[in-house]
Amino acid sequence: MVRQRNKPWADDFLKENSHFVIPDPSEKKDIWHEVFGNNNPIHLEIGTGKGQFLAGMAKQFPEINFIGIEVAKSIVVTAAQKLMETDQDNILLINENAEKLREIFAENEISTIYLNFSDPWPKNRHEKRRLTFRTFLDQYKEVLQPNGELILKTDNRGLFEYSLVSFSEFGMDLKEVNLDLHKAEDPENVMTEYEAKFSANGQVIYRCRAQFS
Amino acid sequence: MVRQRNKPWADDFLKENSHFVIPDPSEKKDIWHEVFGNNNPIHLEIGTGKGQFLAGMAKQFPEINFIGIEVAKSIVVTAAQKLMETDQDNILLINENAEKLREIFAENEISTIYLNFSDPWPKNRHEKRRLTFRTFLDQYKEVLQPNGELILKTDNRGLFEYSLVSFSEFGMDLKEVNLDLHKAEDPENVMTEYEAKFSANGQVIYRCRAQFS
Repeated sequence: MVRQRNKPWADDFLKENSHFVIPDPSEKKDIWHEVFGNNNPIHLEIGTGKGQFLAGMAKQFPEINFIGIEVAKSIVVTAAQKLMETDQDNILLINENAEKLREIFAENEISTIYLNFSDPWPKNRHEKRRLTFRTFLDQYKEVLQPNGELILKTDNRGLFEYSLVSFSEFGMDLKEVNLDLHKAEDPENVMTEYEAKFSANGQVIYRCRAQFS
Repeated sequence: MVRQRNKPWADDFLKENSHFVIPDPSEKKDIWHEVFGNNNPIHLEIGTGKGQFLAGMAKQFPEINFIGIEVAKSIVVTAAQKLMETDQDNILLINENAEKLREIFAENEISTIYLNFSDPWPKNRHEKRRLTFRTFLDQYKEVLQPNGELILKTDNRGLFEYSLVSFSEFGMDLKEVNLDLHKAEDPENVMTEYEAKFSANGQVIYRCRAQFS
């Protein structure tokens, strides 16, 4: 959902910063705690955009390791530039497609997954691309710990409605549904770039937390 | 949720109209199809208020029998006066507390239950009074046919959020979630009195359909 701009120097940048944007993430499968150098729980944001959410979360929760996965190379570069400035040692990025989660993470390696303002793919024929379609849920279930949570946040009504039904069909348990996040004023909520913009426009933000049973 | 006015003549009215407001509904348990004189499916609205929803539904779906249950005597009288004018032979009313569903209906006797703009009971200590609290869901499950649906419609955000989680905890399956019913313009939607008023004020109306599994 982030506009991509061509960055001819992106490959060089990524090569120079392979400590932060992990170049061959499948080699780290089951040893991500070693990459972070501790045994703290790992939270994963899928579609991490420009990284504002990760920046805020990593600062607020220093005892949690955060990984952002983002398919668009030029956006990963933007996120990396911003996130490296924060000097937080509990953030890493991956430039990869979310379809490959199973190759990148071992079973139970992740304790929380965030989907923030994912592309809604509103056309029925694009249902399979939505990050809450059952094939993605299959992957999340595998890499998430038992009782691990999937936390979805979006301003898109259609995607939220679809996701609640998709979670239910998959047998997931809803732990929380929030239909106007900013009205509720959760002091721990960290806004994404979109969220700040949409919310300022009076757009309702939806959030839910769900578990695999 | 409807304002009650004292009607000293209510008892006389109900006695005279016992063909329409059934006085001892537990006597009709398991034989409601005989009361209607046919084997059409029976839909139940809990908290039927002044009856506008039942009037519209009964007209739109003549092959379905509708029963409205409403605890407030003076409101049942108002609903009865209005509904008898419609000359629909597929509506009956019951002046009873929804806690007594098991006494009034046999297992599987109902095919759909509607909760329309139920009292949200927003205080935590009143959770048990909400019509989507688990003790009510227990009753709905018993009187509903397998695959029978519970359809909830409300303008109250807190009640809707609570209900989605309560359904999930109960193991129910969400079949549909609609977070802005009137924007979606469902041509079959029949509005209640509140819905018409709230919607005209720009209030979002939520709806969901859920099944017991």
